[in-house]
Amino acid sequence: MSEMNGAQSLIRTLVDSGVDVCFSNPGTSEMHFVAALDSVPEMRGVLGLFEGVVTGAADGYARIADKPAATLLHLGPGLGNGLANLHNARRAHTPIVNVIGDHATYHKQYDAPLESDIEAVAGSLEGWVRRSEHTKDVGADAAAAVAASQDAPGQVATLILPADASWGEGGETCAPIPPRIPQAVDATTVKNIAEVLSSGEPVALLVGGSGCREAGLRATSRIAAATGVKAFVETFPARLERGEGLPTIERLGYLAEQVAYQLDGIKHVIVAGTKAPVSFFAYPGKASNLVPEGAQVHVLAEIAQDVPRALNDVAELVAAETEPVLQEASRPALPSGPLTPQNWVDVIGALLPERAIIADEANTSGLLLPAATAGAPRHDVLTLTGGAIGYGMPVATGAAVAAPDRPVINLQSDGSALYTISALWTQARENLNVTTVLLNNRAYAILRLELQRVGADANGPKANELLDLSRPDMDFVKIAEGMGVPATRATTAEELAEQFQRALAEPGPHLIDAIVPTLF
Amino acid sequence: MSEMNGAQSLIRTLVDSGVDVCFSNPGTSEMHFVAALDSVPEMRGVLGLFEGVVTGAADGYARIADKPAATLLHLGPGLGNGLANLHNARRAHTPIVNVIGDHATYHKQYDAPLESDIEAVAGSLEGWVRRSEHTKDVGADAAAAVAASQDAPGQVATLILPADASWGEGGETCAPIPPRIPQAVDATTVKNIAEVLSSGEPVALLVGGSGCREAGLRATSRIAAATGVKAFVETFPARLERGEGLPTIERLGYLAEQVAYQLDGIKHVIVAGTKAPVSFFAYPGKASNLVPEGAQVHVLAEIAQDVPRALNDVAELVAAETEPVLQEASRPALPSGPLTPQNWVDVIGALLPERAIIADEANTSGLLLPAATAGAPRHDVLTLTGGAIGYGMPVATGAAVAAPDRPVINLQSDGSALYTISALWTQARENLNVTTVLLNNRAYAILRLELQRVGADANGPKANELLDLSRPDMDFVKIAEGMGVPATRATTAEELAEQFQRALAEPGPHLIDAIVPTLF
Repeated sequence: MSEMNGAQSLIRTLVDSGVDVCFSNPGTSEMHFVAALDSVPEMRGVLGLFEGVVTGAADGYARIADKPAATLLHLGPGLGNGLANLHNARRAHTPIVNVIGDHATYHKQYDAPLESDIEAVAGSLEGWVRRSEHTKDVGADAAAAVAASQDAPGQVATLILPADASWGEGGETCAPIPPRIPQAVDATTVKNIAEVLSSGEPVALLVGGSGCREAGLRATSRIAAATGVKAFVETFPARLERGEGLPTIERLGYLAEQVAYQLDGIKHVIVAGTKAPVSFFAYPGKASNLVPEGAQVHVLAEIAQDVPRALNDVAELVAAETEPVLQEASRPALPSGPLTPQNWVDVIGALLPERAIIADEANTSGLLLPAATAGAPRHDVLTLTGGAIGYGMPVATGAAVAAPDRPVINLQSDGSALYTISALWTQARENLNVTTVLLNNRAYAILRLELQRVGADANGPKANELLDLSRPDMDFVKIAEGMGVPATRATTAEELAEQFQRALAEPGPHLIDAIVPTLF
Repeated sequence: MSEMNGAQSLIRTLVDSGVDVCFSNPGTSEMHFVAALDSVPEMRGVLGLFEGVVTGAADGYARIADKPAATLLHLGPGLGNGLANLHNARRAHTPIVNVIGDHATYHKQYDAPLESDIEAVAGSLEGWVRRSEHTKDVGADAAAAVAASQDAPGQVATLILPADASWGEGGETCAPIPPRIPQAVDATTVKNIAEVLSSGEPVALLVGGSGCREAGLRATSRIAAATGVKAFVETFPARLERGEGLPTIERLGYLAEQVAYQLDGIKHVIVAGTKAPVSFFAYPGKASNLVPEGAQVHVLAEIAQDVPRALNDVAELVAAETEPVLQEASRPALPSGPLTPQNWVDVIGALLPERAIIADEANTSGLLLPAATAGAPRHDVLTLTGGAIGYGMPVATGAAVAAPDRPVINLQSDGSALYTISALWTQARENLNVTTVLLNNRAYAILRLELQRVGADANGPKANELLDLSRPDMDFVKIAEGMGVPATRATTAEELAEQFQRALAEPGPHLIDAIVPTLF
């Protein structure tokens, strides 16, 4: 490749920097990028039929691969369509190289129909944004984008690629640039935290970010076992390792009421790799800050620091002789009878396969899931870090691209499913091992609950109508089949168990439309 | 309603200002708005399962109702999901009152998971943006938003509504505020344009915006008939009135090559309600500015001015005695045989019902449509003004809410359908008279064409793979049925004709999966 255009230098540089999957929803301004895929055989292009699938897949991919994927989006509207799942990725600190094609530099002055302020929208992600104006700079900008995406703790790096920078000749590749790695926490901080832990006062240790992987969890478990402090992982970890042979650390609750119970009487909250707990939403007359009144917050490690090492350093001071408490194997019995909010999670707990990845967007339907799966074989749980629904199906798709040899289980609520439903088509096209259990309660159940919690008068028929998904009922078997994914319907625990096992045994994607009544 | 909260004052003020439909995709921060719907019976809440459906429906509604609808979106990610169709609305100059719920004012400091920079994203729409910080101001802000949305020529007015402003007591309604109406074009400009028209040199008159409605078209036709100038309507009108009894004015082409042919030899381009023609995209070695070299551009009326009146004033000077040329009734014969790019449009032309509204996102499949429907009964065509695909199904939905007594025909390409497919569910829920003809060519056909046009090497298998939608084939019959919309499949012209007539005869939505080979 002696002569390259900008697009070729971009893709070659991405591959040289370790980025070899590009989730794509291209348009005219990206056609040279698309054409260039054939000149760099190492790059895999994966097509999504909607940008929210593309960005969510890039999020799921990196959470499992521990390295970024690229996206390919079409101008400002393409970014808009991908924004919600980029928001979730931002909150997960997921590295993503977000490539947005734009009009040619000289074309922007004409304010053609697709012209819009891409920088303004990309800037809202508070990551790294650069416009690559000149063909010769595209390679260097790409290498900088890959590095920026991986700068600790990870972020969305957006590279805006004008069409003429892409099609121009004179592209130059660029060698990989090392990202900023997590810095160690200083010894004084470690010592101070050790003193708080040994103070004898009630302490909670809240762990997030990279602390939710095995090393951090083992250190956390040792600290808790040795000092008796209450340990928690954050409410919505990007990736939580759990199951048999790993410490089971309780997650902080979603509802303020749960957190108040969990932190009752606590005088010191130590945070590592996350922030002090706040309410997801505000509610009239209720606190937003969930740190108990009078309690002190101590920061062991910022999210950009080396969280597992900081936890381990503390453990060496306060728990040198203590082993972590590891979860023993334990599964619920296979239940029977019509599906309920309890028995469907028991089916998952009873049958969860080895090395599973759970993409969890079960929302209210999944409240009882953690207990049912705690003693299942070791697995990863990916959660909705940013609260922007429509994340589960795309994230499952990307996770399956990252780990083709692992079973991916997408636990998906119906209310969130339609945002990015065409992820199913990508799963079929790529023959991905994703089993979607669609929790179909025919309602925005969480909003029924929230309508009560915000203190709003909930009795009006028009209000209730807006939270009801049962008119018409959605038939997710037909929807999935229409997108090329084999699907079945389960109304009993026995059916769910049988269909779940069959789906796992057969390669490629499957969907089970599980009719589960709402908790509320 | 002696005591009101902010949400109640908002909805009451909207209704008093003439806004009585709210397309909604609410979340927790919007629960008081949802609850307040029951206190203002005149307001109709229409649920969408994805924000792109909500914003596109608001666009389609206003294009037909000639007044704004409201939206209800959930924080920054909700706005992101709705952004692409708001972009189209911006380009259509559609009035929309875009209500975005946000965290309570005092909650924002905690940077809860859904926190993001809403103003930055809303600002990219270049419309009107206001945050309503205090309950007592919500009513006045709502009235200002309605007025701003209708300020000529129309725009997206975004009102950000913090949850505590919504739930707080002390809401006050506000009387309607008159919007800024289109200003008349001054007599000197009219006279100057009349002189250009009478110069004897080759002139093109390009009409857009409100000029694409009956009054503007009649004046345009008179001018063209009297002076011999070439008249065109803009490439993508927000709403074009056409058919029997109206002047048929040729649309400017989408491809630069078409426009070059249409404007060949022109020395003066007069624009009224639109801008001088530019290429939709840039292409290597081709012009972005489509005004022929050496030709002069003259502005008769800016889009915010009174375009029909300006055209009429000119017609009174140059065509006082001339009648417009009105389209006579004329329909293609009903064709037969396997569906082709030509015969499917003939079916539509032969059977288009009285007073139809066409939401046109047929893209490449629809290139032959205008000729086939020119002499059909009078109808409205809504087009993709901003180029952000996924607009057709939502716009059809909103148009049907605005005009329940008119048949809405959504001509929908497969490549654009999956972005906002859940609009079908809303159509079923609201029993809307929308007939979707899904043009299923199993490819991003327009991108195949564009890959050639940008000069990219188009022969690589990976590039072609990214433009192919046939692995797996989508079954839109199943997808539609899964969302509650009756659906059939047509592979011949006879089947399409029979199914189209049946769909129109029966109330409620229908979808026809029309298997039409690609043109390219």
